[in-house]
Amino acid sequence: MAARRPAPGETLVHFFDINSEAPGKSRSWSPNTLPIRAVLNYKMAPYTQTYVAMPDIEPLLKSLHVPPLEGGRVPYTLPAILHKPSILNEGATLNDSFALAVHLETIFPPEAGYKSIFPNGQCSYALAVAVLKVFRSIYPPALPFCYPAVPKYLDERSREYFYASRKQMLGMTMDEFEAKGEALEEAWKATEAEIAVLVKMLKGRPSPRKSRGPFFEGEHPGYADMVLLGFMGWFQKNSQADLDRLLKMGDGELQKVWDAGHQWLEAEGENVEYEIPK
Amino acid sequence: MAARRPAPGETLVHFFDINSEAPGKSRSWSPNTLPIRAVLNYKMAPYTQTYVAMPDIEPLLKSLHVPPLEGGRVPYTLPAILHKPSILNEGATLNDSFALAVHLETIFPPEAGYKSIFPNGQCSYALAVAVLKVFRSIYPPALPFCYPAVPKYLDERSREYFYASRKQMLGMTMDEFEAKGEALEEAWKATEAEIAVLVKMLKGRPSPRKSRGPFFEGEHPGYADMVLLGFMGWFQKNSQADLDRLLKMGDGELQKVWDAGHQWLEAEGENVEYEIPK
Repeated sequence: MAARRPAPGETLVHFFDINSEAPGKSRSWSPNTLPIRAVLNYKMAPYTQTYVAMPDIEPLLKSLHVPPLEGGRVPYTLPAILHKPSILNEGATLNDSFALAVHLETIFPPEAGYKSIFPNGQCSYALAVAVLKVFRSIYPPALPFCYPAVPKYLDERSREYFYASRKQMLGMTMDEFEAKGEALEEAWKATEAEIAVLVKMLKGRPSPRKSRGPFFEGEHPGYADMVLLGFMGWFQKNSQADLDRLLKMGDGELQKVWDAGHQWLEAEGENVEYEIPK
Repeated sequence: MAARRPAPGETLVHFFDINSEAPGKSRSWSPNTLPIRAVLNYKMAPYTQTYVAMPDIEPLLKSLHVPPLEGGRVPYTLPAILHKPSILNEGATLNDSFALAVHLETIFPPEAGYKSIFPNGQCSYALAVAVLKVFRSIYPPALPFCYPAVPKYLDERSREYFYASRKQMLGMTMDEFEAKGEALEEAWKATEAEIAVLVKMLKGRPSPRKSRGPFFEGEHPGYADMVLLGFMGWFQKNSQADLDRLLKMGDGELQKVWDAGHQWLEAEGENVEYEIPK
């Protein structure tokens, strides 16, 4: 899977991802950034990228005149893309994942031969919004075993930042927050109970079976699938055992999505040094 | 809007709805039964119907060999349909709303000229499952002002049953449960905060504007819209003022769905006496 070759003089989309030392084909690990990486790769859009250590995200975004996210617990987060030809605000930067996905569909549209992340139009869009909402119920039970795994693969500066910022957010240390023993098993079961709705969606209508595909919408993935793949990719970085347990939920539906789509989490754009103001 | 005329000798779908003395074009009021009525009317499927008082639902369903709903707080509920030609269990009865909608799509399929409630195939199906899940977050804040309105229009036997069963379910009297004064305002605001996701879905992609329609999927309604319409229809029966306040949320998106779809909540099948075992 190779991206389209950029046209002479083309200003590429520049993608800011969160740094890590995670093993695997890419260092990408965040369930927020992976869906955007998946969109770029699925569309075979040419892009450049920079991995940014966590303490550098706020200064970077401020230097790009990005306002803090409203209502979020983390006001300055990635992903962000910088693309002067199409983003007309002062910093030419967008950093809300879903707004960003919608924007990428506009600048890499099906009319120009790119694959669509809204293959069923308004239905795909509504589905993506609903799935993002459904994930808000999936995160709370999963965080007590997902968050504690993250520092393992972060670079040292990001790790320190992660511990400090999450302690402030959670009101306790990561060690206190971590689900262990019976609580860990409970957390997994509660996660599985919330994942059940995704499984039901993927199972699809009992009839007609002919229209079944691995993805939420059938044969072609949409942004809702990229969100699910990003979540799965996060589990993989946390631990292969965690991913394996996740993929076993349901009757093989999640495994099929992973098999068909994990490739889009892995490809990378050209790494470019980007000087981050301190 | 008239239903198709039944063919000679055709065994019609028989629809069991919950009784009331609610004013309006039909006595239907329940957010669980209204979506199925909407499906039947939207498809212009011919059907017969019986309104059942609440204390009669359990004996009726038991006589039809319907097992209690798993995991539900109310094990015997309507809607149910009885249709011997297509439902092959002992009582020829189905009573889970969503399973029932899926079944109606099979017996009144687009291939035979009926309108589809899954106009975008698997995408529509996944969307309906997700919207049903989203509604699980909308009900809790709305119940403290919706439940207390219901007894106003129930028939006397159903009213007594409703008070008793809800007292057991809620662990308090309806008067204690009812949101009043400041708590009422809070409940409305919390409901609006949850409705916001539906508004976002209905707003649709900022571009291309050409594909906008009043419904979740654009021009054609799907089962997700019937669920929303059923919820709106419940508000209308509770009080016109409640419906008006609901429809004002967002920027007119909900009003457009109501204007385009409320007709499907109102039409009725032929009323048929059905002797309910006591």
